Amino acid sequence: MQLQEQLQDTQERLATFIANYFAQPLDTDETVKAATYYSINNGGKRLRPFLVYATGNLFGAAIEDLDVAAAAIECVHSYSLVHDDLPAMDDDDLRRGKPTCHIAFDEAQAILAGDALQTMAFELLSEHKFKIAPEQQIKMINVLARAAGIQGMVGGQALDLEGTNKAISLTELERVHRLKTGALLSAAIELGALCSPNVGDNTFNALRQYAKNIGLAFQVQDDILDIEGDTESLGKPKGSDIENKKSTYPALLGLDGAKQKARSLIQQALKALEDIDQDTEVLASLAHYIIERNY
Amino acid sequence: MQLQEQLQDTQERLATFIANYFAQPLDTDETVKAATYYSINNGGKRLRPFLVYATGNLFGAAIEDLDVAAAAIECVHSYSLVHDDLPAMDDDDLRRGKPTCHIAFDEAQAILAGDALQTMAFELLSEHKFKIAPEQQIKMINVLARAAGIQGMVGGQALDLEGTNKAISLTELERVHRLKTGALLSAAIELGALCSPNVGDNTFNALRQYAKNIGLAFQVQDDILDIEGDTESLGKPKGSDIENKKSTYPALLGLDGAKQKARSLIQQALKALEDIDQDTEVLASLAHYIIERNY
Repeated sequence: MQLQEQLQDTQERLATFIANYFAQPLDTDETVKAATYYSINNGGKRLRPFLVYATGNLFGAAIEDLDVAAAAIECVHSYSLVHDDLPAMDDDDLRRGKPTCHIAFDEAQAILAGDALQTMAFELLSEHKFKIAPEQQIKMINVLARAAGIQGMVGGQALDLEGTNKAISLTELERVHRLKTGALLSAAIELGALCSPNVGDNTFNALRQYAKNIGLAFQVQDDILDIEGDTESLGKPKGSDIENKKSTYPALLGLDGAKQKARSLIQQALKALEDIDQDTEVLASLAHYIIERNY
Repeated sequence: MQLQEQLQDTQERLATFIANYFAQPLDTDETVKAATYYSINNGGKRLRPFLVYATGNLFGAAIEDLDVAAAAIECVHSYSLVHDDLPAMDDDDLRRGKPTCHIAFDEAQAILAGDALQTMAFELLSEHKFKIAPEQQIKMINVLARAAGIQGMVGGQALDLEGTNKAISLTELERVHRLKTGALLSAAIELGALCSPNVGDNTFNALRQYAKNIGLAFQVQDDILDIEGDTESLGKPKGSDIENKKSTYPALLGLDGAKQKARSLIQQALKALEDIDQDTEVLASLAHYIIERNY
């Protein structure tokens, strides 16, 4: 199966899982339920779920366990988008060509929908009866919490806000992205591996190296697309980084330097995969895709 | 020890736990770290942690386990206050006599601090090595997630927002409070019991009955204090319910009717305690305190 088909497969699996969740009778307010469903059902690439499945499939994880882990991490990612889009944060009206949650509903509902999605992640991971040992399930919850929290995604978003409108160094920029997006991409890989019964430390380390490098490459490519992409493919106006005076890789390294950086990160990701005995072709394809995508 | 001393003891234990957490080197943004610490270190009564300790102590739970459970549930409660106070929600500038987080910092930091506190709850519960079985630890995480999420606190807050500026029935009002505050108070009791090795189903059910009744009584008393309390004791302006056109128990039942309702709920809570073999005096004292407090 080609990568595009595999990505689509992930998108469909996740859509079904989410639809089933919201088809249950839920004792809640109908508006916040609609806002929450709207926020996760957002037409995203589902890169984190894809990484969960791709990694878990390498090591013989049960598909039902991967479904839950994939949905949980996407809940966290989706909640972060809803809150990042709020007027007090990035103040974005459009995401992937659709009105953001606070535009489609209102600010209060967007705050609550984001909150609900974060909780849903931990509810899913603690509710499901995984085939792995309970200690490993607890570890999964911990991996996701650490990646999402103050020393992960939230810390990175705060650093990013503080870095707006001022020049920061390459080291500082890398720290922002390591926390803001890198931590959760790494967590996706780790969740996939933790759903599997026996993944050794060396393999785990190689997976983390891979994740770290594709995570950063993903961000460099995002910065490049903000200059070279077109609004229609991106689903949002290009040039917003310059408008918001954000520090970016092209600003610090030049456009060619940024492209070079992205390629070098992907080479390092591919090198990390050499330490894994399994057939890692799908992870290699994904690494290439990350810097070849146009949205 | 008198109840007031026991409440103070809980407040001090929790303050130490939280201070130790934030004294660790944290790889994060300094502003969001300060906003998060400010938000949890808020001078609250710590009723939920108190319930965790009181229940756990009845059944021989380890104090280190209770510390973690108490801190986790207070993280969730504190996050909800920070987000509820935001301009798009209740738009409150003061809480317990201090500027709310978005006033002391700004809106973006308040959104992020709330987000970070929610994640911290699940990080704490998944990081600690509990003395109970891992299956029971997973159950604790699930209890907290369910109580906090779309079918608990967040759902209740959404219902509460929708109920503002319009008349709702007593049944609808009880539903709001069952989700908005009742679910988390019940979770506090359940976390305390789950930290303990052997609590039977009958005892669990009695604890839930107790929790449900004090939870509702707490809310009725809050509504009464909004009319009869004084601003200094409350730490916020009284009369805000009327100003915000919120449905309340006094509005639906009259002031005397609301007081009668609160007393009757406390009687039911005390009755539930009769089904528990242990010495439940501390829980009985707390039930009385709930309708006798003036803040």
